[in-house]
Amino acid sequence: MEIPQSWGGVCSLPWYVGGSQVLGVACVVITGVWMGHFYGGYAWNGSGQQFNVHPLCMVLGMVFLYGDGVLVYRVFRNESKRSVKILHALIHMMALVISIVGLVAVFDYHNKANIPNMYSLHSWCGMLTFVLYFLQWLLGLGLFLFPWASTVLRSWYLPLHVFFGLVLLAMAVGSSLMGITEKLIFSQSSSSSSTLAPEAALANVLGLLLVCFAVLVGFVVTKEEFRRPPNPEEEALSVHFNTLNDGSGPSSP
Amino acid sequence: MEIPQSWGGVCSLPWYVGGSQVLGVACVVITGVWMGHFYGGYAWNGSGQQFNVHPLCMVLGMVFLYGDGVLVYRVFRNESKRSVKILHALIHMMALVISIVGLVAVFDYHNKANIPNMYSLHSWCGMLTFVLYFLQWLLGLGLFLFPWASTVLRSWYLPLHVFFGLVLLAMAVGSSLMGITEKLIFSQSSSSSSTLAPEAALANVLGLLLVCFAVLVGFVVTKEEFRRPPNPEEEALSVHFNTLNDGSGPSSP
Repeated sequence: MEIPQSWGGVCSLPWYVGGSQVLGVACVVITGVWMGHFYGGYAWNGSGQQFNVHPLCMVLGMVFLYGDGVLVYRVFRNESKRSVKILHALIHMMALVISIVGLVAVFDYHNKANIPNMYSLHSWCGMLTFVLYFLQWLLGLGLFLFPWASTVLRSWYLPLHVFFGLVLLAMAVGSSLMGITEKLIFSQSSSSSSTLAPEAALANVLGLLLVCFAVLVGFVVTKEEFRRPPNPEEEALSVHFNTLNDGSGPSSP
Repeated sequence: MEIPQSWGGVCSLPWYVGGSQVLGVACVVITGVWMGHFYGGYAWNGSGQQFNVHPLCMVLGMVFLYGDGVLVYRVFRNESKRSVKILHALIHMMALVISIVGLVAVFDYHNKANIPNMYSLHSWCGMLTFVLYFLQWLLGLGLFLFPWASTVLRSWYLPLHVFFGLVLLAMAVGSSLMGITEKLIFSQSSSSSSTLAPEAALANVLGLLLVCFAVLVGFVVTKEEFRRPPNPEEEALSVHFNTLNDGSGPSSP
């Protein structure tokens, strides 16, 4: 049996990243079409149209932008580490802000419609994911981007940051899958018929694409060949924030 | 800031494994109590009691036993690799058989009650997870336990086997979360009241424990310090199936 060696080479990275972008954009577009076509589009007036902002923002922020924020360390593996760190932090800040808009949309809608908050497993897992994401972002900012953390502390935290980064992406997708399940059952379009309604088929495909996106991002990030190559020259040139202070080498994913 | 060095040492492995077992057993017990106390227990007569077999078997097989099957390479990191391989395959076979019983239970119940199969995202993701798990088990058996695969093929497939092993655990937990969400909404105990019903609270806690179990298993498996130490003596002694044939070194996680 012949082994496809090209799967392992760095030259395949653009294909994986390209594939992830196709999947990620498809997820955002399908969520937008689902809410736009089947539930009357978007507004901020306390109506069901305001609820529609929630899934769109969460898929855009907590899944697509989050995944892209993770991928920058592989996509720009030959660029300066300082620039990539800042890009990583900025994309995750955008993802956080968009997620906050999505959360405010649903809480505000619930409150105006007298629907209780935080009773479903979707809301428990989703809120847990968001809170841990916010903590992870603060810790990453404090320990990796600013100079006050020691190299020992950074190298201790780095594998945890990477591991929980992928865990939180999986939790975000899991929460999205529960959200899709809830929405489909509440709309009763899938349960009232013995055939698969077009809306349910679209939403189920969205669920599978979200899973594929997260799996592809996880694959690219954990693949040994795609890791950022060591660059002793860059380390020696002290282009990192922390090296300006304590002269120690940088730690980054 | 002091860094808790003990977190990184191998001596902490028993605590993580012990914690994962507490979480895993809690998941199985809570699922059993949920179905037993709130839905009248278990039977195989086409009634709702037959449905109850489904969540119990899936949580026991696709989550708890699956996770333990993954963990054996870390728990028995100093035992002979051949024994650990066989144990790994056997636990996963048990997990597969129990999952098949769980699947037959729900399909048979649906068919007798004229409920359509495979329309929900839960069923799509769950079935995809099961089919990929079965393929992964066959590939693992064929390539790692029996002697006909070359060392090159084994070392190419090994990282994929490990990566997709964790992906499938995450997908199994994601499918379980959707199953919990569906069951709670269909039972209407959580949506008809503005307070959290005891059943919904129990099921939501189950969901969070399932997530914690998978995260802990993933943490133990991916932690560099917990990996199986290289054992050149073992390699030289040819205690592996494949070395009896082609004399090449073994590949295993």
